[in-house]
Amino acid sequence: MGRVTSRHKVVRIDLDGETTRSIDTVAGEEPLEVRVNGTTFTVTMRTPGHDIDLAHGLLRAEGVIARREDVVTARFCSDLDTLNVLNLEVPGRSDELAVTSTRNLASLGGCGLCGTTAVDAVDAVMSRPPPEVVWEADVVADALEELRSRQTVFDKTGGAHGAGLAPAPGGVGAARLLAIVREDIGRHNAVDKVLGAALVTGVATEGGLLVVSSRASFEIVQKAAVSGIAVLACVSAPSSLAIEAADRLGVTLVAFARDRRMSVYTHPHRIPH
Amino acid sequence: MGRVTSRHKVVRIDLDGETTRSIDTVAGEEPLEVRVNGTTFTVTMRTPGHDIDLAHGLLRAEGVIARREDVVTARFCSDLDTLNVLNLEVPGRSDELAVTSTRNLASLGGCGLCGTTAVDAVDAVMSRPPPEVVWEADVVADALEELRSRQTVFDKTGGAHGAGLAPAPGGVGAARLLAIVREDIGRHNAVDKVLGAALVTGVATEGGLLVVSSRASFEIVQKAAVSGIAVLACVSAPSSLAIEAADRLGVTLVAFARDRRMSVYTHPHRIPH
Repeated sequence: MGRVTSRHKVVRIDLDGETTRSIDTVAGEEPLEVRVNGTTFTVTMRTPGHDIDLAHGLLRAEGVIARREDVVTARFCSDLDTLNVLNLEVPGRSDELAVTSTRNLASLGGCGLCGTTAVDAVDAVMSRPPPEVVWEADVVADALEELRSRQTVFDKTGGAHGAGLAPAPGGVGAARLLAIVREDIGRHNAVDKVLGAALVTGVATEGGLLVVSSRASFEIVQKAAVSGIAVLACVSAPSSLAIEAADRLGVTLVAFARDRRMSVYTHPHRIPH
Repeated sequence: MGRVTSRHKVVRIDLDGETTRSIDTVAGEEPLEVRVNGTTFTVTMRTPGHDIDLAHGLLRAEGVIARREDVVTARFCSDLDTLNVLNLEVPGRSDELAVTSTRNLASLGGCGLCGTTAVDAVDAVMSRPPPEVVWEADVVADALEELRSRQTVFDKTGGAHGAGLAPAPGGVGAARLLAIVREDIGRHNAVDKVLGAALVTGVATEGGLLVVSSRASFEIVQKAAVSGIAVLACVSAPSSLAIEAADRLGVTLVAFARDRRMSVYTHPHRIPH
Protein backbone atom coordinates (compact mmCIF):
# COMPACT_ATOMS: atom_id res chain seq x y z
CA MET A 1 0.00 0.00 0.00
CA GLY A 2 1.27 3.44 -0.85
CA ARG A 3 1.42 6.10 1.75
CA VAL A 4 -1.41 8.51 2.51
CA THR A 5 1.14 11.09 3.64
CA SER A 6 4.92 11.26 3.54
CA ARG A 7 7.63 13.48 4.99
CA HIS A 8 10.02 15.67 3.03
CA LYS A 9 12.75 18.18 3.77
CA VAL A 10 11.77 21.80 3.24
CA VAL A 11 13.41 25.22 3.36
CA ARG A 12 10.89 27.83 4.54
CA ILE A 13 11.69 31.36 3.39
CA ASP A 14 9.93 34.33 4.97
CA LEU A 15 11.04 37.46 3.10
CA ASP A 16 10.16 39.59 6.12
CA GLY A 17 11.47 37.11 8.68
CA GLU A 18 13.71 34.08 9.03
CA THR A 19 14.59 31.12 6.88
CA THR A 20 14.13 27.76 8.58
CA ARG A 21 14.85 24.18 7.58
CA SER A 22 12.48 21.47 8.69
CA ILE A 23 10.52 18.37 7.72
CA ASP A 24 7.07 18.76 6.18
CA THR A 25 4.22 16.26 5.86
CA VAL A 26 2.68 16.17 2.38
CA ALA A 27 -0.24 14.31 0.83
CA GLY A 28 0.61 11.12 -1.05
CA GLU A 29 0.09 10.95 -4.82
CA GLU A 30 0.50 7.77 -6.87
CA PRO A 31 -1.05 6.52 -10.10
CA LEU A 32 -3.86 3.96 -9.85
CA GLU A 33 -4.66 1.88 -12.90
CA VAL A 34 -8.25 0.62 -12.79
CA ARG A 35 -8.82 -2.46 -14.92
CA VAL A 36 -12.19 -3.98 -15.83
CA ASN A 37 -12.02 -7.70 -16.63
CA GLY A 38 -8.27 -7.39 -17.11
CA THR A 39 -8.36 -4.45 -19.52
CA THR A 40 -7.18 -0.95 -18.56
CA PHE A 41 -10.18 1.31 -18.00
CA THR A 42 -8.38 4.42 -16.77
CA VAL A 43 -5.35 5.67 -14.87
CA THR A 44 -5.85 8.32 -12.21
CA MET A 45 -3.41 10.09 -9.90
CA ARG A 46 -4.74 9.55 -6.41
CA THR A 47 -3.83 9.49 -2.74
CA PRO A 48 -3.46 5.79 -1.86
CA GLY A 49 -6.16 4.35 0.38
CA HIS A 50 -9.83 3.44 -0.15
CA ASP A 51 -8.91 2.41 -3.70
CA ILE A 52 -11.75 -0.10 -3.94
CA ASP A 53 -14.24 2.64 -3.03
CA LEU A 54 -12.60 4.87 -5.65
CA ALA A 55 -12.90 2.24 -8.38
CA HIS A 56 -16.55 1.55 -7.56
CA GLY A 57 -17.39 5.28 -7.56
CA LEU A 58 -15.58 5.87 -10.81
CA LEU A 59 -17.24 2.96 -12.59
CA ARG A 60 -20.64 3.99 -11.29
CA ALA A 61 -20.17 7.58 -12.47
CA GLU A 62 -19.19 6.28 -15.90
CA GLY A 63 -22.26 4.07 -16.13
CA VAL A 64 -20.25 0.82 -16.16
CA ILE A 65 -21.88 -0.47 -12.98
CA ALA A 66 -25.09 0.50 -11.20
CA ARG A 67 -25.22 -1.85 -8.21
CA ARG A 68 -22.74 -3.42 -5.85
CA GLU A 69 -23.65 -6.85 -7.24
CA ASP A 70 -22.34 -5.83 -10.68
CA VAL A 71 -18.80 -6.31 -9.37
CA VAL A 72 -17.96 -9.89 -8.41
CA THR A 73 -14.35 -9.30 -7.30
CA ALA A 74 -12.01 -6.33 -6.84
CA ARG A 75 -8.40 -7.39 -6.46
CA PHE A 76 -4.97 -5.75 -6.64
CA CYS A 77 -2.63 -7.37 -9.16
CA SER A 78 -0.44 -9.53 -6.97
CA ASP A 79 2.46 -9.95 -9.38
CA LEU A 80 3.49 -6.31 -9.01
CA ASP A 81 5.59 -4.58 -6.35
CA THR A 82 3.11 -1.78 -5.77
CA LEU A 83 -0.61 -1.82 -5.02
CA ASN A 84 -1.34 0.52 -7.89
CA VAL A 85 -3.16 -1.77 -10.30
CA LEU A 86 -6.67 -2.85 -9.32
CA ASN A 87 -8.79 -5.23 -11.37
CA LEU A 88 -12.58 -5.49 -11.08
CA GLU A 89 -14.48 -8.42 -12.49
CA VAL A 90 -17.72 -7.10 -13.97
CA PRO A 91 -19.54 -9.94 -15.80
CA GLY A 92 -21.07 -8.89 -19.09
CA ARG A 93 -18.92 -5.80 -19.66
CA SER A 94 -16.02 -6.21 -22.00
CA ASP A 95 -15.03 -4.92 -25.40
CA GLU A 96 -17.24 -1.86 -25.63
CA LEU A 97 -15.43 -0.40 -22.62
CA ALA A 98 -12.32 0.21 -24.68
CA VAL A 99 -14.17 3.11 -26.29
CA THR A 100 -15.23 4.73 -23.04
CA SER A 101 -11.86 4.31 -21.45
CA THR A 102 -10.10 6.85 -23.65
CA ARG A 103 -11.49 9.53 -21.37
CA ASN A 104 -14.66 9.66 -19.35
CA LEU A 105 -15.89 12.35 -21.71
CA ALA A 106 -14.80 10.75 -24.94
CA SER A 107 -18.22 9.17 -25.16
CA LEU A 108 -19.56 12.68 -25.77
CA GLY A 109 -17.77 13.01 -29.11
CA GLY A 110 -19.41 12.82 -32.48
CA CYS A 111 -21.59 15.89 -32.27
CA GLY A 112 -20.33 19.36 -31.57
CA LEU A 113 -19.30 18.66 -27.98
CA CYS A 114 -21.39 21.40 -26.56
CA GLY A 115 -22.53 21.50 -22.97
CA THR A 116 -25.90 20.08 -23.96
CA THR A 117 -24.34 16.90 -25.32
CA ALA A 118 -22.37 16.43 -22.14
CA VAL A 119 -25.50 16.80 -20.04
CA ASP A 120 -27.46 14.41 -22.28
CA ALA A 121 -24.81 11.76 -21.71
CA VAL A 122 -25.36 12.00 -17.96
CA ASP A 123 -29.13 11.98 -18.35
CA ALA A 124 -28.90 8.46 -19.74
CA VAL A 125 -27.41 6.90 -16.60
CA MET A 126 -28.61 9.04 -13.72
CA SER A 127 -31.21 8.50 -11.03
CA ARG A 128 -33.10 11.79 -10.81
CA PRO A 129 -33.28 12.95 -7.16
CA PRO A 130 -36.75 13.13 -5.61
CA PRO A 131 -37.99 16.74 -5.99
CA GLU A 132 -39.67 16.86 -2.60
CA VAL A 133 -36.49 16.30 -0.55
CA VAL A 134 -35.36 19.43 1.28
CA TRP A 135 -32.16 20.20 3.17
CA GLU A 136 -32.34 23.14 5.59
CA ALA A 137 -29.62 25.76 4.99
CA ASP A 138 -28.56 25.32 8.63
CA VAL A 139 -28.03 21.59 8.11
CA VAL A 140 -26.00 22.21 4.94
CA ALA A 141 -23.78 24.61 6.90
CA ASP A 142 -23.43 22.06 9.72
CA ALA A 143 -22.45 19.33 7.26
CA LEU A 144 -19.74 21.54 5.76
CA GLU A 145 -18.42 22.33 9.21
CA GLU A 146 -18.40 18.62 10.06
CA LEU A 147 -16.55 17.84 6.82
CA ARG A 148 -13.87 20.37 7.66
CA SER A 149 -13.44 18.93 11.16
CA ARG A 150 -12.99 15.42 9.76
CA GLN A 151 -10.40 16.25 7.07
CA THR A 152 -7.43 14.70 8.88
CA VAL A 153 -5.17 14.46 5.82
CA PHE A 154 -5.79 18.13 5.07
CA ASP A 155 -4.93 19.01 8.67
CA LYS A 156 -1.55 17.31 8.30
CA THR A 157 -0.70 18.49 4.79
CA GLY A 158 -2.78 21.50 3.76
CA GLY A 159 -3.10 19.73 0.43
CA ALA A 160 -6.02 17.32 0.17
CA HIS A 161 -9.65 17.69 -0.83
CA GLY A 162 -12.48 16.22 1.21
CA ALA A 163 -15.97 15.00 0.37
CA GLY A 164 -18.76 13.76 2.62
CA LEU A 165 -22.20 12.23 2.25
CA ALA A 166 -25.23 12.87 4.44
CA PRO A 167 -27.72 10.19 3.36
CA ALA A 168 -30.91 11.72 4.76
CA PRO A 169 -31.87 15.08 6.24
CA GLY A 170 -30.94 15.09 9.93
CA GLY A 171 -31.81 17.82 12.38
CA VAL A 172 -29.78 20.98 12.93
CA GLY A 173 -27.01 20.26 15.40
CA ALA A 174 -27.23 16.47 14.91
CA ALA A 175 -24.14 14.79 16.39
CA ARG A 176 -23.03 13.43 13.06
CA LEU A 177 -24.55 14.18 9.67
CA LEU A 178 -21.97 12.62 7.38
CA ALA A 179 -22.12 8.83 7.05
CA ILE A 180 -18.99 8.74 4.89
CA VAL A 181 -16.02 11.12 4.59
CA ARG A 182 -13.09 10.58 2.22
CA GLU A 183 -10.01 12.60 1.26
CA ASP A 184 -7.74 12.68 -1.79
CA ILE A 185 -5.39 15.10 -3.53
CA GLY A 186 -7.90 15.03 -6.41
CA ARG A 187 -11.40 16.37 -5.82
CA HIS A 188 -12.88 13.95 -8.37
CA ASN A 189 -11.27 11.07 -6.51
CA ALA A 190 -12.59 12.25 -3.14
CA VAL A 191 -16.11 12.29 -4.60
CA ASP A 192 -15.65 8.89 -6.29
CA LYS A 193 -14.39 7.42 -3.00
CA VAL A 194 -17.44 8.68 -1.09
CA LEU A 195 -20.03 7.59 -3.64
CA GLY A 196 -18.18 4.30 -4.22
CA ALA A 197 -18.09 3.60 -0.48
CA ALA A 198 -21.85 4.27 -0.36
CA LEU A 199 -22.37 1.70 -3.14
CA VAL A 200 -20.13 -0.87 -1.45
CA THR A 201 -21.57 -0.46 2.05
CA GLY A 202 -25.20 0.03 1.05
CA VAL A 203 -25.62 3.64 2.21
CA ALA A 204 -28.41 5.32 0.20
CA THR A 205 -27.35 8.24 -2.02
CA GLU A 206 -30.76 9.08 -3.56
CA GLY A 207 -31.96 12.38 -2.14
CA GLY A 208 -28.73 12.80 -0.18
CA LEU A 209 -26.48 15.80 0.50
CA LEU A 210 -22.94 15.71 -0.89
CA VAL A 211 -20.48 18.25 0.51
CA VAL A 212 -17.17 18.88 -1.26
CA SER A 213 -14.24 21.09 -0.21
CA SER A 214 -13.45 22.19 -3.76
CA ARG A 215 -15.05 24.12 -6.58
CA ALA A 216 -18.07 22.76 -8.48
CA SER A 217 -17.17 21.59 -11.97
CA PHE A 218 -19.28 19.71 -14.50
CA GLU A 219 -17.71 16.40 -13.59
CA ILE A 220 -18.58 16.75 -9.90
CA VAL A 221 -22.20 17.52 -10.80
CA GLN A 222 -22.19 14.55 -13.18
CA LYS A 223 -21.00 12.17 -10.45
CA ALA A 224 -23.55 13.55 -7.97
CA ALA A 225 -26.40 13.30 -10.49
CA VAL A 226 -25.66 9.70 -11.45
CA SER A 227 -25.98 8.76 -7.76
CA GLY A 228 -29.23 10.67 -7.29
CA ILE A 229 -27.78 13.29 -4.93
CA ALA A 230 -30.38 16.04 -4.23
CA VAL A 231 -28.08 18.79 -2.94
CA LEU A 232 -24.42 19.29 -3.90
CA ALA A 233 -22.70 21.90 -1.72
CA CYS A 234 -19.18 23.02 -2.65
CA VAL A 235 -16.88 25.35 -0.74
CA SER A 236 -15.58 27.15 -3.82
CA ALA A 237 -16.85 28.53 -7.16
CA PRO A 238 -19.09 26.82 -9.74
CA SER A 239 -18.45 26.68 -13.50
CA SER A 240 -21.01 27.62 -16.15
CA LEU A 241 -21.48 24.01 -17.27
CA ALA A 242 -21.83 22.80 -13.68
CA ILE A 243 -24.77 25.19 -13.27
CA GLU A 244 -26.35 24.24 -16.60
CA ALA A 245 -25.99 20.53 -15.82
CA ALA A 246 -27.37 20.84 -12.28
CA ASP A 247 -30.30 22.86 -13.63
CA ARG A 248 -31.18 20.26 -16.26
CA LEU A 249 -30.57 17.22 -14.06
CA GLY A 250 -32.58 18.38 -11.07
CA VAL A 251 -29.65 18.75 -8.65
CA THR A 252 -29.62 21.70 -6.23
CA LEU A 253 -26.18 23.29 -6.66
CA VAL A 254 -24.78 25.29 -3.75
CA ALA A 255 -21.35 26.94 -4.09
CA PHE A 256 -19.18 29.39 -2.12
CA ALA A 257 -20.55 27.56 0.92
CA ARG A 258 -18.44 28.73 3.86
CA ASP A 259 -18.65 30.81 7.01
CA ARG A 260 -22.42 30.19 7.23
CA ARG A 261 -23.00 31.77 3.83
CA MET A 262 -23.86 29.98 0.60
CA SER A 263 -24.92 30.76 -2.97
CA VAL A 264 -27.66 28.56 -4.44
CA TYR A 265 -27.49 28.41 -8.25
CA THR A 266 -30.17 25.85 -9.12
CA HIS A 267 -33.40 24.46 -7.63
CA PRO A 268 -33.30 26.68 -4.52
CA HIS A 269 -36.67 25.30 -3.31
CA ARG A 270 -34.73 22.42 -1.73
CA ILE A 271 -32.90 24.79 0.65
CA PRO A 272 -35.46 26.35 3.01
CA HIS A 273 -33.96 28.82 5.48
CA MET B 1 -16.39 30.56 -29.56
CA GLY B 2 -17.71 29.63 -26.18
CA ARG B 3 -17.81 32.14 -23.42
CA VAL B 4 -14.99 32.82 -20.99
CA THR B 5 -17.54 33.86 -18.39
CA SER B 6 -21.32 33.74 -18.24
CA ARG B 7 -24.04 35.11 -15.99
CA HIS B 8 -26.43 33.06 -13.88
CA LYS B 9 -29.17 33.69 -11.36
CA VAL B 10 -28.20 33.05 -7.75
CA VAL B 11 -29.85 33.05 -4.32
CA ARG B 12 -27.36 34.13 -1.66
CA ILE B 13 -28.16 32.87 1.83
CA ASP B 14 -26.41 34.34 4.86
CA LEU B 15 -27.50 32.36 7.91
CA ASP B 16 -26.63 35.30 10.15
CA GLY B 17 -27.97 37.95 7.76
CA GLU B 18 -30.20 38.41 4.74
CA THR B 19 -31.06 36.34 1.70
CA THR B 20 -30.60 38.16 -1.59
CA ARG B 21 -31.32 37.30 -5.22
CA SER B 22 -28.93 38.53 -7.88
CA ILE B 23 -26.96 37.66 -11.01
CA ASP B 24 -23.51 36.11 -10.66
CA THR B 25 -20.64 35.90 -13.15
CA VAL B 26 -19.09 32.42 -13.38
CA ALA B 27 -16.15 30.94 -15.28
CA GLY B 28 -16.99 29.17 -18.53
CA GLU B 29 -16.47 25.41 -18.82
CA GLU B 30 -16.85 23.46 -22.06
CA PRO B 31 -15.29 20.27 -23.42
CA LEU B 32 -12.48 20.63 -25.96
CA GLU B 33 -11.65 17.66 -28.14
CA VAL B 34 -8.07 17.82 -29.39
CA ARG B 35 -7.47 15.79 -32.53
CA VAL B 36 -4.09 14.95 -34.07
CA ASN B 37 -4.24 14.27 -37.81
CA GLY B 38 -7.98 13.78 -37.55
CA THR B 39 -7.91 11.26 -34.68
CA THR B 40 -9.11 12.10 -31.16
CA PHE B 41 -6.11 12.59 -28.87
CA THR B 42 -7.92 13.72 -25.73
CA VAL B 43 -10.96 15.56 -24.43
CA THR B 44 -10.49 18.13 -21.69
CA MET B 45 -12.96 20.36 -19.85
CA ARG B 46 -11.63 23.88 -20.25
CA THR B 47 -12.55 27.55 -20.19
CA PRO B 48 -12.91 28.54 -23.87
CA GLY B 49 -10.21 30.85 -25.22
CA HIS B 50 -6.53 30.36 -26.15
CA ASP B 51 -7.43 26.85 -27.30
CA ILE B 52 -4.59 26.70 -29.79
CA ASP B 53 -2.11 27.53 -27.02
CA LEU B 54 -3.75 24.84 -24.90
CA ALA B 55 -3.44 22.19 -27.61
CA HIS B 56 0.21 23.03 -28.26
CA GLY B 57 1.04 22.92 -24.56
CA LEU B 58 -0.76 19.65 -24.06
CA LEU B 59 0.92 17.97 -27.03
CA ARG B 60 4.32 19.25 -25.95
CA ALA B 61 3.83 17.94 -22.40
CA GLU B 62 2.87 14.54 -23.82
CA GLY B 63 5.96 14.42 -26.03
CA VAL B 64 3.96 14.48 -29.28
CA ILE B 65 5.58 17.73 -30.45
CA ALA B 66 8.79 19.48 -29.40
CA ARG B 67 8.89 22.56 -31.63
CA ARG B 68 6.41 24.97 -33.14
CA GLU B 69 7.32 23.68 -36.60
CA ASP B 70 6.05 20.21 -35.71
CA VAL B 71 2.49 21.53 -36.15
CA VAL B 72 1.65 22.61 -39.69
CA THR B 73 -1.96 23.67 -39.10
CA ALA B 74 -4.29 24.02 -36.12
CA ARG B 75 -7.91 24.43 -37.16
CA PHE B 76 -11.35 24.17 -35.55
CA CYS B 77 -13.67 21.71 -37.25
CA SER B 78 -15.86 24.00 -39.33
CA ASP B 79 -18.76 21.59 -39.85
CA LEU B 80 -19.78 21.80 -36.21
CA ASP B 81 -21.90 24.39 -34.42
CA THR B 82 -19.44 24.86 -31.59
CA LEU B 83 -15.73 25.63 -31.58
CA ASN B 84 -14.99 22.69 -29.33
CA VAL B 85 -13.15 20.38 -31.70
CA LEU B 86 -9.63 21.40 -32.73
CA ASN B 87 -7.51 19.43 -35.18
CA LEU B 88 -3.72 19.76 -35.41
CA GLU B 89 -1.81 18.45 -38.38
CA VAL B 90 1.44 16.93 -37.11
CA PRO B 91 3.27 15.22 -39.99
CA GLY B 92 4.83 11.88 -39.07
CA ARG B 93 2.68 11.21 -35.99
CA SER B 94 -0.19 8.86 -36.48
CA ASP B 95 -1.15 5.39 -35.33
CA GLU B 96 1.06 5.11 -32.29
CA LEU B 97 -0.78 8.05 -30.73
CA ALA B 98 -3.85 5.93 -30.18
CA VAL B 99 -1.98 4.24 -27.35
CA THR B 100 -0.96 7.46 -25.61
CA SER B 101 -4.34 9.04 -25.99
CA THR B 102 -6.14 6.72 -23.60
CA ARG B 103 -4.79 8.88 -20.82
CA ASN B 104 -1.66 10.93 -20.55
CA LEU B 105 -0.40 8.48 -17.97
CA ALA B 106 -1.42 5.30 -19.72
CA SER B 107 2.05 5.18 -21.23
CA LEU B 108 3.31 4.40 -17.73
CA GLY B 109 1.53 1.05 -17.59
CA GLY B 110 3.19 -2.34 -17.90
CA CYS B 111 5.33 -2.20 -14.80
CA GLY B 112 4.03 -1.61 -11.31
CA LEU B 113 2.99 2.01 -11.88
CA CYS B 114 5.12 3.32 -9.09
CA GLY B 115 6.20 6.93 -8.84
CA THR B 116 9.59 6.02 -10.30
CA THR B 117 8.02 4.77 -13.52
CA ALA B 118 6.04 7.96 -13.87
CA VAL B 119 9.16 10.05 -13.41
CA ASP B 120 11.13 7.89 -15.88
CA ALA B 121 8.50 8.55 -18.53
CA VAL B 122 9.03 12.29 -18.15
CA ASP B 123 12.78 11.90 -18.17
CA ALA B 124 12.59 10.64 -21.72
CA VAL B 125 11.10 13.82 -23.20
CA MET B 126 12.27 16.64 -20.93
CA SER B 127 14.88 19.35 -21.39
CA ARG B 128 16.72 19.45 -18.07
CA PRO B 129 16.90 23.06 -16.80
CA PRO B 130 20.37 24.63 -16.57
CA PRO B 131 21.60 24.11 -12.97
CA GLU B 132 23.28 27.51 -12.72
CA VAL B 133 20.10 29.57 -13.22
CA VAL B 134 18.97 31.31 -10.04
CA TRP B 135 15.75 33.17 -9.21
CA GLU B 136 15.91 35.47 -6.18
CA ALA B 137 13.18 34.78 -3.60
CA ASP B 138 12.12 38.44 -3.92
CA VAL B 139 11.60 38.05 -7.65
CA VAL B 140 9.57 34.85 -7.17
CA ALA B 141 7.35 36.73 -4.69
CA ASP B 142 6.99 39.64 -7.15
CA ALA B 143 6.04 37.27 -9.97
CA LEU B 144 3.32 35.68 -7.82
CA GLU B 145 1.99 39.10 -6.90
CA GLU B 146 1.96 40.08 -10.58
CA LEU B 147 0.12 36.86 -11.48
CA ARG B 148 -2.57 37.62 -8.93
CA SER B 149 -3.00 41.17 -10.26
CA ARG B 150 -3.44 39.88 -13.81
CA GLN B 151 -6.04 37.15 -13.08
CA THR B 152 -8.99 39.00 -14.58
CA VAL B 153 -11.25 35.94 -14.94
CA PHE B 154 -10.64 35.07 -11.29
CA ASP B 155 -11.51 38.64 -10.29
CA LYS B 156 -14.88 38.32 -12.03
CA THR B 157 -15.73 34.77 -10.97
CA GLY B 158 -13.66 33.64 -7.98
CA GLY B 159 -13.32 30.37 -9.86
CA ALA B 160 -10.38 30.21 -12.27
CA HIS B 161 -6.75 29.20 -11.92
CA GLY B 162 -3.92 31.29 -13.31
CA ALA B 163 -0.43 30.50 -14.56
CA GLY B 164 2.37 32.81 -15.70
CA LEU B 165 5.82 32.51 -17.26
CA ALA B 166 8.84 34.67 -16.51
CA PRO B 167 11.33 33.69 -19.21
CA ALA B 168 14.54 35.04 -17.65
CA PRO B 169 15.48 36.41 -14.25
CA GLY B 170 14.51 40.11 -14.12
CA GLY B 171 15.38 42.44 -11.28
CA VAL B 172 13.35 42.89 -8.12
CA GLY B 173 10.60 45.41 -8.75
CA ALA B 174 10.80 45.05 -12.56
CA ALA B 175 7.69 46.57 -14.15
CA ARG B 176 6.61 43.29 -15.64
CA LEU B 177 8.12 39.87 -15.01
CA LEU B 178 5.56 37.61 -16.68
CA ALA B 179 5.72 37.44 -20.47
CA ILE B 180 2.59 35.25 -20.64
CA VAL B 181 -0.39 34.86 -18.29
CA ARG B 182 -3.30 32.50 -18.92
CA GLU B 183 -6.39 31.47 -16.95
CA ASP B 184 -8.63 28.42 -16.97
CA ILE B 185 -11.00 26.58 -14.63
CA GLY B 186 -8.48 23.72 -14.81
CA ARG B 187 -4.99 24.25 -13.43
CA HIS B 188 -3.48 21.80 -15.93
CA ASN B 189 -5.10 23.75 -18.73
CA ALA B 190 -3.79 27.08 -17.43
CA VAL B 191 -0.26 25.63 -17.44
CA ASP B 192 -0.70 24.05 -20.89
CA LYS B 193 -1.97 27.40 -22.25
CA VAL B 194 1.07 29.28 -20.91
CA LEU B 195 3.67 26.77 -22.09
CA GLY B 196 1.84 26.31 -25.40
CA ALA B 197 1.74 30.07 -25.96
CA ALA B 198 5.49 30.18 -25.28
CA LEU B 199 6.02 27.48 -27.93
CA VAL B 200 3.78 29.25 -30.46
CA THR B 201 5.20 32.75 -29.93
CA GLY B 202 8.84 31.74 -29.46
CA VAL B 203 9.25 32.78 -25.80
CA ALA B 204 12.03 30.71 -24.19
CA THR B 205 10.97 28.40 -21.37
CA GLU B 206 14.39 26.84 -20.56
CA GLY B 207 15.59 28.13 -17.21
CA GLY B 208 12.33 30.06 -16.73
CA LEU B 209 10.10 30.64 -13.72
CA LEU B 210 6.55 29.24 -13.88
CA VAL B 211 4.08 30.55 -11.29
CA VAL B 212 0.77 28.74 -10.74
CA SER B 213 -2.17 29.71 -8.50
CA SER B 214 -2.96 26.12 -7.53
CA ARG B 215 -1.35 23.23 -5.70
CA ALA B 216 1.67 21.39 -7.11
CA SER B 217 0.78 17.93 -8.41
CA PHE B 218 2.91 15.48 -10.36
CA GLU B 219 1.37 16.50 -13.66
CA ILE B 220 2.21 20.18 -13.16
CA VAL B 221 5.84 19.26 -12.40
CA GLN B 222 5.84 16.99 -15.46
CA LYS B 223 4.65 19.79 -17.74
CA ALA B 224 7.20 22.24 -16.28
CA ALA B 225 10.04 19.74 -16.60
CA VAL B 226 9.32 18.90 -20.23
CA SER B 227 9.61 22.62 -21.04
CA GLY B 228 12.89 23.04 -19.11
CA ILE B 229 11.41 25.29 -16.41
CA ALA B 230 14.00 25.91 -13.63
CA VAL B 231 11.69 27.09 -10.85
CA LEU B 232 8.02 26.10 -10.40
CA ALA B 233 6.30 28.19 -7.72
CA CYS B 234 2.78 27.21 -6.64
CA VAL B 235 0.46 29.03 -4.26
CA SER B 236 -0.83 25.90 -2.56
CA ALA B 237 0.42 22.50 -1.31
CA PRO B 238 2.68 19.99 -3.10
CA SER B 239 2.05 16.23 -3.37
CA SER B 240 4.62 13.56 -2.52
CA LEU B 241 5.11 12.56 -6.15
CA ALA B 242 5.45 16.19 -7.23
CA ILE B 243 8.38 16.52 -4.82
CA GLU B 244 9.98 13.23 -5.89
CA ALA B 245 9.63 14.14 -9.58
CA ALA B 246 10.99 17.67 -9.14
CA ASP B 247 13.93 16.27 -7.15
CA ARG B 248 14.83 13.73 -9.84
CA LEU B 249 14.21 16.03 -12.80
CA GLY B 250 16.21 19.01 -11.54
CA VAL B 251 13.28 21.38 -11.08
CA THR B 252 13.21 23.70 -8.05
CA LEU B 253 9.79 23.20 -6.49
CA VAL B 254 8.37 26.04 -4.40
CA ALA B 255 4.93 25.63 -2.76
CA PHE B 256 2.76 27.51 -0.24
CA ALA B 257 4.13 30.63 -1.99
CA ARG B 258 2.02 33.51 -0.72
CA ASP B 259 2.21 36.59 1.49
CA ARG B 260 5.98 36.85 0.89
CA ARG B 261 6.55 33.39 2.35
CA MET B 262 7.43 30.22 0.45
CA SER B 263 8.48 26.62 1.10
CA VAL B 264 11.24 25.24 -1.13
CA TYR B 265 11.09 21.44 -1.41
CA THR B 266 13.76 20.66 -4.00
CA HIS B 267 17.00 22.20 -5.31
CA PRO B 268 16.89 25.25 -3.00
CA HIS B 269 20.26 26.53 -4.30
CA ARG B 270 18.34 28.20 -7.14
CA ILE B 271 16.47 30.48 -4.70
CA PRO B 272 19.02 32.81 -3.05
CA HIS B 273 17.49 35.17 -0.50
